[in-house]
Amino acid sequence: MELGMIGIGRMGANMAQRLLRAGHKVVGYARTASTVEQRVKEGAISSGATSLEDVVKQLSTPRILWLMVPAASVDDTIAQLLPHLSEGDILVDGGNSNYQDDIRRAAELEKHKIHYVDCGTSGGVWGLERGYCQMIGGEDEVVKYLDPIFKVLAPGVGEISRTPGRPANKGTAEEGYLHCGPHGAGHFVKMVHNGIEYGVMAAYAEGLNILYHANIGKNTHMVDAETAPVQSPEHYQYDMDLPEISELWRRGSVISSWLLDLTAQSFQENPTLSNFSGRVADSGEGRWTIKAAIDEGVPAHVLSAALYDRFESRNQAEFANKVLSAMRFQFGGHHER
Amino acid sequence: MELGMIGIGRMGANMAQRLLRAGHKVVGYARTASTVEQRVKEGAISSGATSLEDVVKQLSTPRILWLMVPAASVDDTIAQLLPHLSEGDILVDGGNSNYQDDIRRAAELEKHKIHYVDCGTSGGVWGLERGYCQMIGGEDEVVKYLDPIFKVLAPGVGEISRTPGRPANKGTAEEGYLHCGPHGAGHFVKMVHNGIEYGVMAAYAEGLNILYHANIGKNTHMVDAETAPVQSPEHYQYDMDLPEISELWRRGSVISSWLLDLTAQSFQENPTLSNFSGRVADSGEGRWTIKAAIDEGVPAHVLSAALYDRFESRNQAEFANKVLSAMRFQFGGHHER
Amino acid sequence: MELGMIGIGRMGANMAQRLLRAGHKVVGYARTASTVEQRVKEGAISSGATSLEDVVKQLSTPRILWLMVPAASVDDTIAQLLPHLSEGDILVDGGNSNYQDDIRRAAELEKHKIHYVDCGTSGGVWGLERGYCQMIGGEDEVVKYLDPIFKVLAPGVGEISRTPGRPANKGTAEEGYLHCGPHGAGHFVKMVHNGIEYGVMAAYAEGLNILYHANIGKNTHMVDAETAPVQSPEHYQYDMDLPEISELWRRGSVISSWLLDLTAQSFQENPTLSNFSGRVADSGEGRWTIKAAIDEGVPAHVLSAALYDRFESRNQAEFANKVLSAMRFQFGGHHER
Amino acid sequence: MELGMIGIGRMGANMAQRLLRAGHKVVGYARTASTVEQRVKEGAISSGATSLEDVVKQLSTPRILWLMVPAASVDDTIAQLLPHLSEGDILVDGGNSNYQDDIRRAAELEKHKIHYVDCGTSGGVWGLERGYCQMIGGEDEVVKYLDPIFKVLAPGVGEISRTPGRPANKGTAEEGYLHCGPHGAGHFVKMVHNGIEYGVMAAYAEGLNILYHANIGKNTHMVDAETAPVQSPEHYQYDMDLPEISELWRRGSVISSWLLDLTAQSFQENPTLSNFSGRVADSGEGRWTIKAAIDEGVPAHVLSAALYDRFESRNQAEFANKVLSAMRFQFGGHHER
Repeated sequence: MELGMIGIGRMGANMAQRLLRAGHKVVGYARTASTVEQRVKEGAISSGATSLEDVVKQLSTPRILWLMVPAASVDDTIAQLLPHLSEGDILVDGGNSNYQDDIRRAAELEKHKIHYVDCGTSGGVWGLERGYCQMIGGEDEVVKYLDPIFKVLAPGVGEISRTPGRPANKGTAEEGYLHCGPHGAGHFVKMVHNGIEYGVMAAYAEGLNILYHANIGKNTHMVDAETAPVQSPEHYQYDMDLPEISELWRRGSVISSWLLDLTAQSFQENPTLSNFSGRVADSGEGRWTIKAAIDEGVPAHVLSAALYDRFESRNQAEFANKVLSAMRFQFGGHHER
Repeated sequence: MELGMIGIGRMGANMAQRLLRAGHKVVGYARTASTVEQRVKEGAISSGATSLEDVVKQLSTPRILWLMVPAASVDDTIAQLLPHLSEGDILVDGGNSNYQDDIRRAAELEKHKIHYVDCGTSGGVWGLERGYCQMIGGEDEVVKYLDPIFKVLAPGVGEISRTPGRPANKGTAEEGYLHCGPHGAGHFVKMVHNGIEYGVMAAYAEGLNILYHANIGKNTHMVDAETAPVQSPEHYQYDMDLPEISELWRRGSVISSWLLDLTAQSFQENPTLSNFSGRVADSGEGRWTIKAAIDEGVPAHVLSAALYDRFESRNQAEFANKVLSAMRFQFGGHHER
Repeated sequence: MELGMIGIGRMGANMAQRLLRAGHKVVGYARTASTVEQRVKEGAISSGATSLEDVVKQLSTPRILWLMVPAASVDDTIAQLLPHLSEGDILVDGGNSNYQDDIRRAAELEKHKIHYVDCGTSGGVWGLERGYCQMIGGEDEVVKYLDPIFKVLAPGVGEISRTPGRPANKGTAEEGYLHCGPHGAGHFVKMVHNGIEYGVMAAYAEGLNILYHANIGKNTHMVDAETAPVQSPEHYQYDMDLPEISELWRRGSVISSWLLDLTAQSFQENPTLSNFSGRVADSGEGRWTIKAAIDEGVPAHVLSAALYDRFESRNQAEFANKVLSAMRFQFGGHHER
Repeated sequence: MELGMIGIGRMGANMAQRLLRAGHKVVGYARTASTVEQRVKEGAISSGATSLEDVVKQLSTPRILWLMVPAASVDDTIAQLLPHLSEGDILVDGGNSNYQDDIRRAAELEKHKIHYVDCGTSGGVWGLERGYCQMIGGEDEVVKYLDPIFKVLAPGVGEISRTPGRPANKGTAEEGYLHCGPHGAGHFVKMVHNGIEYGVMAAYAEGLNILYHANIGKNTHMVDAETAPVQSPEHYQYDMDLPEISELWRRGSVISSWLLDLTAQSFQENPTLSNFSGRVADSGEGRWTIKAAIDEGVPAHVLSAALYDRFESRNQAEFANKVLSAMRFQFGGHHER
């Protein structure tokens, strides 16, 4: 098939390459001309385009345009593309849009008889090699039409064992892509995926932190007169080898996972993680997941805590903490450091 | 009555003074002789003692010895007192002991026919004026015997309106002291009191922090490329006057409280709380409350979060955050600052 | 002054009565004619109106129309009123609107030269007696013009002691009302007020629950073979008297508050709270508070947990729990009851 | 080598079988004679013993005795074994003891010149096939001596790819067993492992619950007049296919894991999980993890929330919720259902 890849940064270029290898034609476009040139040189795309209009011209109808641009640029990009499109053309948003924007965009594009598909894509920098897990929302026929694209980008069954009892013909999920429902369903599932990701990461991080401090009983000096001393220092005398423990859990334990594999690799590269500052960023999906939980009225203690831990890592609780100190000073005369 | 006050720092001295004013005799003792001298000069105690033995000697039997020493010193102090005591003497631990230590101590002292009473005391630096809320555990007859002491230390009904429908003769709770149950019950109730205190303080602190950041939409610069930008900056354009808002809520609102009164006063003294660093200490009771909840198998989402916020204010999550950054780098190539 | 009160349910009628007592004129309107008639009989309003148009007709310009209708009905009510209004008239939304709706409405009404004021109102069923804490957003001159209204509805300084050091002429906050900022600022502050309310309530509830279960060690039977037994039953032998303990804390303790007063009264009415089912509702403000925290990127561990506890009380975690049981069965062969 | 396996329920028997297959001799003992007979018949043990004394007699010195008994029975079992043991014998506790008990036991046994080793074992019902991840604490020489045992029980490197850059001779962690440190270190690491397990499980459970409720906008009826209605029902119209989504994430996504594999399998067996009630048990390790975090003074928002969610699934927040309803009734006249 033919496809226009709009946005050929690292992620878009890798996806293009996977498509190319499978025999699809990919017209690539980026704002910066030199990026386009480089991708052509690398053989990551079939041909480069000089403008959005040029992308459209190089494709036969119905055209497939895959957007890999920042969520904040999707509406602009669509607005610029729209005048050049024809009825029946298909826009795929493969980035990290909010699913509510998908619902709105699909309704607007429908007036122009342009199809819209939202595709949440997980895989990060490993996708070229591992394949991309794709969560797809949109009209049945359109998603079906794009199946050869999704299949090539997906990891396939691979070496991961089949779920026992699962019928062989049950669908594409076991290849790593799935039509999740109508417009927005793909990004909704991707949003929750990332929400879970935050929670799982925080579970490992908190547990490893408890191991990291397991030698606190060795520190006999009171750090702070106001702080409770360690209650039973004899129980906290362990110098834990975190690189080896994270390696250990990779085999036979209940908590083995890909994120644990990556953690073990990080410790391999730097056993103290001293190359990181302890300030952790967050992107939209984690936030939207919590908002969805609240709209639905379902509890999300763990996923929220994981998000807030990131806010706190960036010192966003500082004023709240000052309020606590102020109260403590007022009622107890406690002077905080 | 006669009473030996062991530990006459600010808190012990104030309590002694309240007893003195009501006509009780208070023998005061502190490790540092100069402290004892000063309390005598101030008129905070009836007489000073030069040693624990001297305190005992100055009292008639059955003796009442009230300990206001750090929780970590209680066992030592009791061991030093014990040889000088007689059957029927009463030890009151008015500090912040763990209730499990009360249970143990009471059993040990019972062998010597010495009575033990645990008395959780709330009131802080305001107690001299406001009175002390006392949560008491021990044997019925002993607690009853000490009633004149507790009554004088307690705030009394005062200007706080009676709970509608409460019979006038229902007991001492409305005077601000209560025999809560057998050994340890007093410190158990005080422990939970402090656990609640942490939760209530955190609720105000988090809410005020949300108000504090209500102008975040005015900051159009992206702080960090990795961080989600403010989704709708037009909704976050408020410069909130926290000193006035905390004052406002003191009257007629659902959340009026003494802690809010103190917050308003703090803002009055320093509208930006710039005199505090944002590092918040915690004492044992908050920790023990969570351990009790876990032993009982009851959820304590809010009280735990309040405790952890304090740990986090002291940077104890730093390594956990590095683990998060390390994972993010591995799967997404994200370089944290 | 003259004022039209639209919505004269319990809350609106009480507010009208406070205004009447102070000599203001209040025209009252409700959808149900019988409600209007009853309020006239009760002397809660100066006169009744048969329609929104009728309310408008009975007022002199610039008219003040105070809306006390459900948040979901505000837009409709405004749409119906608009044709009858004149330039310079003032609409006050005294209900629980989302502040983002205030911003939108104020902009729409400005085109018609109608002024809009948002007024978050706390006080519940006690407001008639205690006065209403009012958090106000809108244009400076308009809010100033309405001052006589706000002042009468507010509690006033009353018996609550002045914050030490606060200048007497510093503003209206100590009377219980405050102009918090531009459009939406009032409901924003009210929103956070309610978020804090949830947190404070949860802190008491969790603490009292820990006291309630302090006798768990008396139950020697294992409830469930899969469940961890109580580790040290000898430490959990207390039958706590919660009615007396909540009464106790009202005087001299750090956690005295109006919510605690109400808790003590509830226990007075029913010591086991057996008249409640344990399902707790939540209204919009608690939810919006968390969404604001997320938009601002500030942590709200405690306030979120308080909200989620309510969701959980309504069994909204049931499916999540089934997922946990399913995993436990898969890896450990654990059969949950 | 020769080894006595004390406790040959499912787990102990499977471990014995793995040892047998590798040529070790295993003497098995259980309290119930018929269990011993059956294990002999199954060929899971080399020979059966009729008493603890009999186990000891059948082994040559220095004896290795591996305990797979409930944590609550370990002390009793050791007390019964002790009279029959000789200097230099080795006791391995392979169950789920608290690491603090390990420290105490090791010190007591040292007086008798008996060695003690704690071995946290993960693998559940899958261990026979997958091998057991073992976290070991004890003296260097003793642990080294037992290496042939641990190696056989462990999963080995298997098909799981080696961590890039890890030297081949770095140690046993990549085979799935590790000497973590002195007495108690093994169970400490296992404890934290289980704490993480709770957190990871809860992250999936909460995320899947959000997907499960993604059709809440289809329900137009208000469930409860007190409850906030769904704010934007048009955004919650998705009927998510959880069996397929959990299958999907197994390949190429960031959150692939063994627990996710098991979740997919559960949905395969029962797409609605209707075979589970929603009451989730918890065992000691999750609780001890939080207590350790508190002793260390490090935050554990996520791991605690995961534990509390289980408490809440068993209705342990009911009284707390009644307190909330009681307050709401008092200040707002809200009648909860």
